[in-house]
Amino acid sequence: MSQLEAVLAKIDANLDASLERLFEFLRIPSISTDSAYKDDCRRAAEWLANDVKALGFEDAGLRSTGGHPVVLGHAPKPGKRHVMFYGHYDVQPVDPLNLWETPPFEPRITTLPDGRKVITARGACDDKGQVMTFLEACRAWKEVTGSLPVGITLLVEGAEEDGSKFLPEFVEANKDELKSDVVLVCDTGMWDGDTPMITTALRGMVYEEVIVRCANRDLHSGLFGGGAANPIRILARIIADLHDADGRVTLDGFYDGVPETPTQVLEQWKGLGLTEESFLGPIGLSIPAGEKGRMLIEQVQSRPTCDANGVIGGYTGEGAKTVIAAEASAKVSFRLVGDQDPEKISAAFKRHCEARIPADCSVEFVKHKGSRAIQLPYDMPELTAARTALQEEWGKAPVTLGSGGSIPIVGDFKRTLGVDSLLVGFGLDDDRVHSPNEKYDLKSFHKGARSWARILARLAE
Amino acid sequence: MSQLEAVLAKIDANLDASLERLFEFLRIPSISTDSAYKDDCRRAAEWLANDVKALGFEDAGLRSTGGHPVVLGHAPKPGKRHVMFYGHYDVQPVDPLNLWETPPFEPRITTLPDGRKVITARGACDDKGQVMTFLEACRAWKEVTGSLPVGITLLVEGAEEDGSKFLPEFVEANKDELKSDVVLVCDTGMWDGDTPMITTALRGMVYEEVIVRCANRDLHSGLFGGGAANPIRILARIIADLHDADGRVTLDGFYDGVPETPTQVLEQWKGLGLTEESFLGPIGLSIPAGEKGRMLIEQVQSRPTCDANGVIGGYTGEGAKTVIAAEASAKVSFRLVGDQDPEKISAAFKRHCEARIPADCSVEFVKHKGSRAIQLPYDMPELTAARTALQEEWGKAPVTLGSGGSIPIVGDFKRTLGVDSLLVGFGLDDDRVHSPNEKYDLKSFHKGARSWARILARLAE
Repeated sequence: MSQLEAVLAKIDANLDASLERLFEFLRIPSISTDSAYKDDCRRAAEWLANDVKALGFEDAGLRSTGGHPVVLGHAPKPGKRHVMFYGHYDVQPVDPLNLWETPPFEPRITTLPDGRKVITARGACDDKGQVMTFLEACRAWKEVTGSLPVGITLLVEGAEEDGSKFLPEFVEANKDELKSDVVLVCDTGMWDGDTPMITTALRGMVYEEVIVRCANRDLHSGLFGGGAANPIRILARIIADLHDADGRVTLDGFYDGVPETPTQVLEQWKGLGLTEESFLGPIGLSIPAGEKGRMLIEQVQSRPTCDANGVIGGYTGEGAKTVIAAEASAKVSFRLVGDQDPEKISAAFKRHCEARIPADCSVEFVKHKGSRAIQLPYDMPELTAARTALQEEWGKAPVTLGSGGSIPIVGDFKRTLGVDSLLVGFGLDDDRVHSPNEKYDLKSFHKGARSWARILARLAE
Repeated sequence: MSQLEAVLAKIDANLDASLERLFEFLRIPSISTDSAYKDDCRRAAEWLANDVKALGFEDAGLRSTGGHPVVLGHAPKPGKRHVMFYGHYDVQPVDPLNLWETPPFEPRITTLPDGRKVITARGACDDKGQVMTFLEACRAWKEVTGSLPVGITLLVEGAEEDGSKFLPEFVEANKDELKSDVVLVCDTGMWDGDTPMITTALRGMVYEEVIVRCANRDLHSGLFGGGAANPIRILARIIADLHDADGRVTLDGFYDGVPETPTQVLEQWKGLGLTEESFLGPIGLSIPAGEKGRMLIEQVQSRPTCDANGVIGGYTGEGAKTVIAAEASAKVSFRLVGDQDPEKISAAFKRHCEARIPADCSVEFVKHKGSRAIQLPYDMPELTAARTALQEEWGKAPVTLGSGGSIPIVGDFKRTLGVDSLLVGFGLDDDRVHSPNEKYDLKSFHKGARSWARILARLAE
């Protein structure tokens, strides 16, 4: 039996114990965006630091930031490649709580109607389950061989769901300590339940909130209707005008810096079998809603998008109230690709809104996020190593594709540390990440750990 | 001292006691649209029935409807004109509660910065305060002369703010009992704080709720953005497209049956001094928001209108959540004039929405209200009587004008009972009816009662 085979056998044998560990981690409600859970976030960080101390990260501990602490540890391996693993121990809020079928912080294994066994809990996939796939691979290597196959720095933050606000300055302040040859990130998904994926591009993001204010109080529409400006009508115009009839975003200069996907890549994508039926069918839809003349896979992968994420104004209770609201507001976000400039797009959005505000009304903006898109190089030796390892574990070549999601810190790793990231994750489209009843397939967890064990072996070569 | 002078003096002398009575009435939170307040509605009805039993309405009591009970009582006066007084004891919901400066159901007298003394409470104006102006006039007549000057039927309902849902069938079922020569309604406003008004027309109403449904669950915009339909975007298009660039409503056939206001009436309106400054200034606005090319007074009086009264969808909490909502909804109402047909407009609105729903999404409608506009005859003898009485009380000729508001039951009185209504009220534009901090001027309450005492005297002639 080769060393790697022994490590993989150890992962198989350890599965029950590793689930126990994951469940302990999942029971801590480390919601980073809600200050009521501040102590729980710290508790999750401490749990993690304790767990990894025995794996070769002898100095693992908590490090302060402006917000929740990061867990940082080092396991050097002179003469070998040094990698930095990045993940996050914080989770999304759980509301609406009444839609959870089981309590979000009481993890359990359940069986789906199609027979899949899944781990159900907030954070099961995003990102506690994914982080633990890497740590279980490390544990098996350590138990079988006494050490890790490559040098590793572990950096697990506690504010990813809050925009990683303080991490860039932490990375900047500790850039010598964080030196590595490549960053490994486990916060992305598979192509499907049988096909692994390496994410080679991430969309950027602009997230804005707009508040339209008209009269100085709510009005009776019977007395003032027809004479007084209505903020819902103004806001509806602002949102409706963000797209033209062809589904293109209308902001000035929005498509500046958006590259055309090369023909050979489009041809490759056509062969992937991402269809209306396979992609939209499970969510109850059938018609691609993006830009006309683009394949669905382009709409969700390589094209920039705009979505209103929330809107509220006026009377929203039961029954009828004849009110003209004093104000109405919306949250609007844009996913960016290529060289789109978040600052320019944010400014164009503000001009778009201001142009639609009557002179006697006003508008306020709240900025939530802004980050550029990221494209990873196709010629990284680590990409080849990971591709081979994943093929060996899953029996299928991994898909290398851009992701619709955003992980802004990957851009900071490149800018500040000069290091590229390798994004390998085992999430699935139906994991309900950010929604009630989040889950992570048991297969993703088990084979995810096996995949990392193989990748570490390849990176050691 | 004439009999009428003695009655007026009695109203003056009774003012403190009458305020005490009104405050008792206002302390009962009779919110008709919220079933949590069902018992309070009944309690308000019982309080009212008890209060009026001594005024000549010996049989006053509660009568069942499909919803909240009505208060009904009769005080016949053979040989004299018989009038029916209509008002309502229910009030609007109080949300947003945090904007109330004093608790909505703890009435008190406060002094405005301009020196006016006002009664502050939910229902202070709409309609408990207005109802009590009439009853205090009756009380003074009874105390001074031992009886009322005309025959009176009192009909005070408990579901006006919920669309008077069950009142039409009650009127139909009791039409012999409700026979009268004229209906007196106290649920409208004055022209300004010194000038009384008789309302001679009421706009009709269509009130619809529209719910747009897309995916079968909330989606992560990073995974599905650009590919999946967004119900907020669809709803924004529906609302934005309800008006054209000139502020006209775009529904098919919307302006069918809308009469042009005669030139001489427009000329008269020009003399009334309703300006952007006087009408919009107090609510913090300055630009008429209605149809271009129409005077502001036309926009709010004689032209039909459309307003979105509420909208909600997606994430509306603090911070940023990258969600694509499964559904979004809006409440939309139309004020009708002339011969506009509520059924046709409701149908046109549905077609307008359906035409903007992608084939893989769906739309649901909830109908809340539908009523035609009403025009009252200018040649009613009761109108002349009221005009004279109001001129004597206020020292100024009353303005006779249409109202932007809707009191659908007035149409039922005409259709079912064959009786016209005389609409006299003492509300002011700054009464915050349907809003936090509703108030009723002490002057409106006091001189309102005196006005009714005079009107009853004139109607007895």
